[in-house]
Amino acid sequence: MALKLYGLPMSTCTARVLICLAEKEVDYELIPVNLFTDDHKQPAFLAKNPFGQIPVLQDADLTLFESRAITSYVAEKYKGSGSDLIRHADIKEAALVKVWMEVESQQFNLPISTITYQYLISPMLGKPTDHQLVEDNVAKLEKVLDVYEQRLTHAKYLAGDFFSLADLHHMSYIHYFLKTPKASLITDRPHVKDWWEDISARPAFTKISANMKYDF
Amino acid sequence: MALKLYGLPMSTCTARVLICLAEKEVDYELIPVNLFTDDHKQPAFLAKNPFGQIPVLQDADLTLFESRAITSYVAEKYKGSGSDLIRHADIKEAALVKVWMEVESQQFNLPISTITYQYLISPMLGKPTDHQLVEDNVAKLEKVLDVYEQRLTHAKYLAGDFFSLADLHHMSYIHYFLKTPKASLITDRPHVKDWWEDISARPAFTKISANMKYDF
Repeated sequence: MALKLYGLPMSTCTARVLICLAEKEVDYELIPVNLFTDDHKQPAFLAKNPFGQIPVLQDADLTLFESRAITSYVAEKYKGSGSDLIRHADIKEAALVKVWMEVESQQFNLPISTITYQYLISPMLGKPTDHQLVEDNVAKLEKVLDVYEQRLTHAKYLAGDFFSLADLHHMSYIHYFLKTPKASLITDRPHVKDWWEDISARPAFTKISANMKYDF
Repeated sequence: MALKLYGLPMSTCTARVLICLAEKEVDYELIPVNLFTDDHKQPAFLAKNPFGQIPVLQDADLTLFESRAITSYVAEKYKGSGSDLIRHADIKEAALVKVWMEVESQQFNLPISTITYQYLISPMLGKPTDHQLVEDNVAKLEKVLDVYEQRLTHAKYLAGDFFSLADLHHMSYIHYFLKTPKASLITDRPHVKDWWEDISARPAFTKISANMKYDF
């Protein structure tokens, strides 16, 4: 039985899982969740994820939520297929993948998601962009990207000289962030820019990002 | 060679790792980092963690940062010793551990750390508690704890009927949170309260929490 993924291709968190499934060359069925009719807040969906958020992965009797937990499960279960995203054969490399996955989660995600929301989502909801909030988060994101720039002078990818979940987890937000007026935070840092050009040229990302558009 | 952990026993993130090391019954050397003389912002420390934060784990030539990545590494490397914190023998249980680790990281950590900082750290720094910020985060934390209360009616621990890293990652913040005027968010929810009483009675936590005090 194929995996079932509940979500939407335009959602950054759904896309994180879709890119992983494409890298692993695993079959799945994507089941759309209508956020505009609040399907994700109805009992049927809340039984799958009590936080009422997409995506949710259903693998037979196993139900998983939180995009980063889903990618880790997929990368582990299908470790023999497609790209090795967790360096399962080397505990030290695997540990460095975890370190940079946590950096994305704890340092990178909040500022980049806040800025992207203010520029791309708020206007669609009829709310003004909060420029003070943007600038506060630009300052935070700059510090994080300065560390990345330094790191990427020593290693081709974040966890080492191999593409991994640590890189993959960043991709869906950078894709949208580059459509904001703050895109130069990525493109003005030469090693960060080279890294992005490399990872965004991967076939899995090209395939999935074709459907990553905020077109309502 | 014993593991070296750079950090401070009072730090929530250092304590997260210390509790894990105690559960795994692994020897280590704790090397204090003087935050008051900004040792964590000096080149020697930044070479270990470019974000300048504690804790850092040194295992021979491997240097790791981000507390949740360190605990995952320790739990994996020493999977045969002490408590099984990652359910390594069962991929489905391991996946549920990851889901609830991500819930702590993405849903629980920001509101509880914000409230705790406002009540316990801000006054020490001579700043007033921002009560609006506290109330905004109380509302967020209540929603998260409502899900936990429901979850813990069906399972003894967050990931299932077994203690795991998913529970452990919550402990250092709850320890301090219970010293704030908002402690009843935990103690008024019967299943959350029972869960906390169970996990906080574990010998590893009793040992480590004895040194978790903000006494400067």
